[in-house]
Amino acid sequence: MRTVDWQDEAVILIDQKVLPWKLEQVALRDYRAVAAAITDMTVRGAPAIGATAAYGLALAARQSQASTMAELIADLQQAAQVLNDARPTAVNLAWAVDQLLALATADRYSTPDALRAAMLAAAQRIADDDVIANQKMGMYGATLITEGSTVLHHCNTGALATVDHGTALGVIRSAHEQGTAFHVLLDETRPRLQGSRLSAWELERLGVSYDIIADTAAGYYMRRGEVSMAIVGADRIAANGDVANKIGTYQVAVLAHAHGIPFYVAAPTSTVDLSLPDGDHIPIEQRDKDEVLAPYGCELAPAHFRARNPAFDITPNEYITGIITECGIASPDYQTSLRAMVNAGQGVS
Amino acid sequence: MRTVDWQDEAVILIDQKVLPWKLEQVALRDYRAVAAAITDMTVRGAPAIGATAAYGLALAARQSQASTMAELIADLQQAAQVLNDARPTAVNLAWAVDQLLALATADRYSTPDALRAAMLAAAQRIADDDVIANQKMGMYGATLITEGSTVLHHCNTGALATVDHGTALGVIRSAHEQGTAFHVLLDETRPRLQGSRLSAWELERLGVSYDIIADTAAGYYMRRGEVSMAIVGADRIAANGDVANKIGTYQVAVLAHAHGIPFYVAAPTSTVDLSLPDGDHIPIEQRDKDEVLAPYGCELAPAHFRARNPAFDITPNEYITGIITECGIASPDYQTSLRAMVNAGQGVS
Repeated sequence: MRTVDWQDEAVILIDQKVLPWKLEQVALRDYRAVAAAITDMTVRGAPAIGATAAYGLALAARQSQASTMAELIADLQQAAQVLNDARPTAVNLAWAVDQLLALATADRYSTPDALRAAMLAAAQRIADDDVIANQKMGMYGATLITEGSTVLHHCNTGALATVDHGTALGVIRSAHEQGTAFHVLLDETRPRLQGSRLSAWELERLGVSYDIIADTAAGYYMRRGEVSMAIVGADRIAANGDVANKIGTYQVAVLAHAHGIPFYVAAPTSTVDLSLPDGDHIPIEQRDKDEVLAPYGCELAPAHFRARNPAFDITPNEYITGIITECGIASPDYQTSLRAMVNAGQGVS
Repeated sequence: MRTVDWQDEAVILIDQKVLPWKLEQVALRDYRAVAAAITDMTVRGAPAIGATAAYGLALAARQSQASTMAELIADLQQAAQVLNDARPTAVNLAWAVDQLLALATADRYSTPDALRAAMLAAAQRIADDDVIANQKMGMYGATLITEGSTVLHHCNTGALATVDHGTALGVIRSAHEQGTAFHVLLDETRPRLQGSRLSAWELERLGVSYDIIADTAAGYYMRRGEVSMAIVGADRIAANGDVANKIGTYQVAVLAHAHGIPFYVAAPTSTVDLSLPDGDHIPIEQRDKDEVLAPYGCELAPAHFRARNPAFDITPNEYITGIITECGIASPDYQTSLRAMVNAGQGVS
């Protein structure tokens, strides 16, 4: 079962809001519902929302009643705007929408139905390519995980954050499948608890040894010498290697640096945004305070208490030991190495 | 209303497990129930559990049917053991029990009833001294909080963590009462959420400007230059100034250091344990994984998922800008300055 799929003229998503209690899929037949599912985090994870947005735009093409190319392109541009606005930080969303929009404006298709078919095929290819990219990242990254080590992981970057297999958690999965014995410490990842709800659910199913820890305990285990490496995903990577990722990533990177622990990022080249010189140009989404005070309806503190809830942070490149992509592991200087990975990635896909 | 009090032959505690929803007191008439209330965190906070244990031992003296001094002392030693075993990390508990036991073995009292009366008076004095110490800490510490600044605070160190007023949150309260305008960022402090449940409740009542943040967001605000100083309490301070405090404190200290932000600890001299050379000799309590997976009955993740839950961590002295006590602010070298504070504190009380 893929996290993001297409069946019977609908976008099919695993509903990540009801995991780990229930494994359920939702079928969406309106691109506006697809955008809403991205905003409310029914689907989350940068690669997963990229594929979802691609399918969403393919769906918009099929929903459109346009009988001329001009009408269809106008409808698609409107739908692209709605999808792009669903969440601001992960670049995979805009990247996927741009890939499909380029088809619409390339003068390669002469009829609306030909364009509709091409867009669905392109969305399928983005989804399929994501799975292949994750397996390649797993292959490259698994070499970094050694027998008997302990790997700290933040947020969820597994099959659920992608179309299948995962990025950072995909590296962990690949190492496990190769027979390496190691332990994983999963940051629970407040406020939305992707670590304790989604990553733990995935590692349970895979049979990987793990313990959930409160985000407050990462430094404790590092100081005790019980963390061998840290690995996370990314929502957007600037040209200089600065990484936007789930709130709390930056802290893990600073702590890893202070303890001399390698800190790796795993992300496909579609997450790299060469148009931005550094991380401070990446927009950071601010989400509702209810996620802090009452996650998933669990009232932890009264609703009238004040809270702030930034969803992402920026980790500067100097804290990052390497960036694992589907084209290999980029090392500093990222300005050069990342561009080479992106060029290689475009050659592949 | 004091957090810890004595009324009608009973130890009276504010039940911190039902805050911020309900402000309720429990009356305990058996010292074993007092120990249980410390273990299950009906009462928590190093100074508060110190005073609670003192009242608990005074209660044990009154519960004892002993008619000779030898019998009473034997009963007290047994009760002291039960109270000491309630929680391992905060030294205030053992410190308070030792203060009262010293009366029992000092040959100053010739009858059991005289000793019973003296022990209750000593417990009262420990409670009263705590309030005075906190007010003095507030006076010294308030000078560190400047107009327009933002103070990051971890866990709860307010009136609820003490007999009244508070340590680190007492410093914040004193600065507010002096008319300084500033903002407080409250780490929610997973797993038990003392920040979002207790500290927020206290600052709401005091009218201090605050926002709760997930523990994952502290580094984000520091990197943005939005944190002027960090202040925390302590559960035990070793002779060299290493500090045991609520899990997550160490991370805040490392982050503050990385950003050049002053990091202060506020604690009475009763929290200093000169018998321990450094923090690595302080026992760290490991608590039940349910606090991570289902705090206060809120099921965040399934009960069968694996989790680890260290309750405290050690912050090495090199990360600490100053230690605010009731006798002044100790600066490095703490080996010398802390001993001077403890000696001055013993002279006062």
